[in-house]
Amino acid sequence: MKIFDRRFFIKSAAAISTTHIATTLADTFTQISPSTLFDHKSVMHLIAPKMATVRIGFIGLGERGLSHVKHCSHIDGIEIKALCDIDQNAMNQASQYLEQQKITLPDEYSGSKLAYKDMLTRNDIDIVIISTPTEWHTPMAVDTMNSNKHAFVEVPAATSVDECWLLVDTSERTQKNCMMMESACYGQKELMVLQMVKQGLFGELKHGESTSLIELHGQQKQEANNNDSSHKKIPAHLYPTHGLGPISQYMNINRGDQFDFLTADQSTTLKRTEATQNQSKPVARDFNTTVITTKLGRTINVKHEINSQSPYTHHTVIQGTNGTFSGPPNRITLEKLPVTVNRHYQNIHQLAVKKWQENGQKGQKPDMQNQQQWNDNMAYWQEHYQHPLWQSKGAEAFQNGETHGKDFLMMWRIIYCLRNGQALDQSVYDAAALSVISPLMTDLVTENSNRKDIPDFTRGLWKNTAPISNAS
Amino acid sequence: MKIFDRRFFIKSAAAISTTHIATTLADTFTQISPSTLFDHKSVMHLIAPKMATVRIGFIGLGERGLSHVKHCSHIDGIEIKALCDIDQNAMNQASQYLEQQKITLPDEYSGSKLAYKDMLTRNDIDIVIISTPTEWHTPMAVDTMNSNKHAFVEVPAATSVDECWLLVDTSERTQKNCMMMESACYGQKELMVLQMVKQGLFGELKHGESTSLIELHGQQKQEANNNDSSHKKIPAHLYPTHGLGPISQYMNINRGDQFDFLTADQSTTLKRTEATQNQSKPVARDFNTTVITTKLGRTINVKHEINSQSPYTHHTVIQGTNGTFSGPPNRITLEKLPVTVNRHYQNIHQLAVKKWQENGQKGQKPDMQNQQQWNDNMAYWQEHYQHPLWQSKGAEAFQNGETHGKDFLMMWRIIYCLRNGQALDQSVYDAAALSVISPLMTDLVTENSNRKDIPDFTRGLWKNTAPISNAS
Repeated sequence: MKIFDRRFFIKSAAAISTTHIATTLADTFTQISPSTLFDHKSVMHLIAPKMATVRIGFIGLGERGLSHVKHCSHIDGIEIKALCDIDQNAMNQASQYLEQQKITLPDEYSGSKLAYKDMLTRNDIDIVIISTPTEWHTPMAVDTMNSNKHAFVEVPAATSVDECWLLVDTSERTQKNCMMMESACYGQKELMVLQMVKQGLFGELKHGESTSLIELHGQQKQEANNNDSSHKKIPAHLYPTHGLGPISQYMNINRGDQFDFLTADQSTTLKRTEATQNQSKPVARDFNTTVITTKLGRTINVKHEINSQSPYTHHTVIQGTNGTFSGPPNRITLEKLPVTVNRHYQNIHQLAVKKWQENGQKGQKPDMQNQQQWNDNMAYWQEHYQHPLWQSKGAEAFQNGETHGKDFLMMWRIIYCLRNGQALDQSVYDAAALSVISPLMTDLVTENSNRKDIPDFTRGLWKNTAPISNAS
Repeated sequence: MKIFDRRFFIKSAAAISTTHIATTLADTFTQISPSTLFDHKSVMHLIAPKMATVRIGFIGLGERGLSHVKHCSHIDGIEIKALCDIDQNAMNQASQYLEQQKITLPDEYSGSKLAYKDMLTRNDIDIVIISTPTEWHTPMAVDTMNSNKHAFVEVPAATSVDECWLLVDTSERTQKNCMMMESACYGQKELMVLQMVKQGLFGELKHGESTSLIELHGQQKQEANNNDSSHKKIPAHLYPTHGLGPISQYMNINRGDQFDFLTADQSTTLKRTEATQNQSKPVARDFNTTVITTKLGRTINVKHEINSQSPYTHHTVIQGTNGTFSGPPNRITLEKLPVTVNRHYQNIHQLAVKKWQENGQKGQKPDMQNQQQWNDNMAYWQEHYQHPLWQSKGAEAFQNGETHGKDFLMMWRIIYCLRNGQALDQSVYDAAALSVISPLMTDLVTENSNRKDIPDFTRGLWKNTAPISNAS
């Protein structure tokens, strides 16, 4: 980065952080009075007062919202107080599920897009789980915090730099949590790799990659049938948070390191399949390649193919000074092996030597030095590095959870932290840092440019914040 | 690209192309008199007069040079006229090999770094194969062409933008070939994929990737022991040509499409292993991520980890509107399947249905629609899409060749083209386009910048040049 650029950026970032409160957003939600004077009290590691029972309101009961309702209904120490959706059918589906589970039926809010505001006037709700169309995420989260409740919001939490700052400012002003529910951070494989990262198995991290090849057919149908499809409006990666969530935990983003700037390149849009090529003209280009560089000089290569002919593929790489995880297909290589793994290799080596001896010592003697190779035995790694959360709640997650248990585990962990007076695994700074990437990509496309600085929503606090604990 | 940038670039590229001839290079090779007036007669698809016998001189008989000598000795229609190396031991090794093969011993040139110039005064040599340290590649190739011989040079052919232009200008002025010997273009898998690309199996190409994770130990030893190591001097990817060679053939670079610009990001340099961290301080950063965008709007993601803890890994991806190749681990997915492949899947489907029926129709009936998946059966793909060159010469290549036969096949193909009056598979424009990437990456590091335009060495001819034939 040139010094001039950095200075200019620091200046403009400062300008934004004092003025964005006044920014006019959709007038569908409560306007916040501009306040350039309020004290920015950090919400890093914010701990809400212990809750014996977590009282929940839901806004949005579509596919994701219903799934959250189901998961909550299997967790102890919660009460579902209210449901809100403009679609009465969706609401009925959630109610019927709760009825089957013999859970006291919550109050219902519907009838208009703003019915959620009535729900927010209640004083018997602690947290609100927001699973609505993307453009409603920030307005609803802001209203939630302003009504003295913690907000838990689907990905992405915001769709612009201004919205990200608004979430941060509101969380700091109200001292309420705003957690983006990126459940990829709670996947079994992702948490195993986090465990290995925390134990130093990969050494010092230098590079990560996240590739999303999004399945063609469903998305094209969605585009063809829905003129409001986000895929039509946003010419960038819609869900970089899925890959970036875990990688930013590995790299301690907001907690010792920070996103610095990104570069992006996009391939042109080529013809679509015959079935859809005349129906919709997508804004999104076919293949987006973004590289984020962190303040400590790590790089993260985020790749996204929106119009993919490949099966749905989500591929992650994390590389350190001692080794690499890459998958799927999942494989791990480590230069210096931990003692247990080394013993494992020694056993393999001894067996190979024995076989070589039995075969009359034909060919080269098996070499122990060749242990540095890709190991794709995930069962083995999982046996040794299963994350504590999966060790204790894995069976329950598989039994109750959809999406391979990670959504259940996320919800369980949220409720656990709130009931036990612990800080949540992810703060509003994570919501903002992860959500801002897609709008910055969009800016690059619009501006026909290739590089953009990334705001530091912690206002420098990342430097002195401890890494995420291994408990998450 | 901003219009201003492009205009500026075109102007400066033009300025370079008329003045670079006068550029002072190492004074170890013949200076070319500046000539701003000579006609730029293209060497695109240059065909040299048929040679009944190809008479060869070798400069450089180290690991690569000796390998080329061995391969040539197994090919009909050649005569090895001369060997040149400053290292008499290397020369002896080559001579001894030829003696074993009962081949007439060539003349030897040694004694000084410029002994090769004496060899070039001979009139009985048609082509010169240059396998010397990198910094000698351009000077020797230029001298070769100026002495009325065709130059075949190891990768990279040049180490700066000026050297690339010098190769192009010299080839055009002398109407002699200058082919960079990127043998990766002749690999079995690479040519199979080229065959599939040419047959349209992947549809229209949109994106490619090439990842090189270079093995740690050998390289660090090289750096520790050799102060002249290129790895010490060049802070970028030394060998992007290995991955870019095949991908640029897939994408018809110089023949219908052209490199436009590149962006690059590099991770910082982290600590090295204990064994070497005090011995050498590398210039190259740990992980370089470069994205090349082509004139037609395709992207190529070139990744390079120089200080890798992973086993040596060279990974390629090519993605089109109908599918993707990715590997290793090698796998292919295609949306619309060709008839033969479709029949293969139908057979699998029928077997699955039969099994399902035999098991009393338990569970879901196997679905033919789920055929879109990753297929890693490379034997199957190779059976159907083996490249003609591998079909006819594969057995011979495996028998005589090192590096999995690709170097032998490359050499066989070069000799074949020269003896049959065919254009070579790769021209000086390919040598320049592929070689210029590494110096441009270095410029970005030096300038602390992220974007750079890539010169068009064909001077616009790429637009009207036919794609490479499928024969290569």
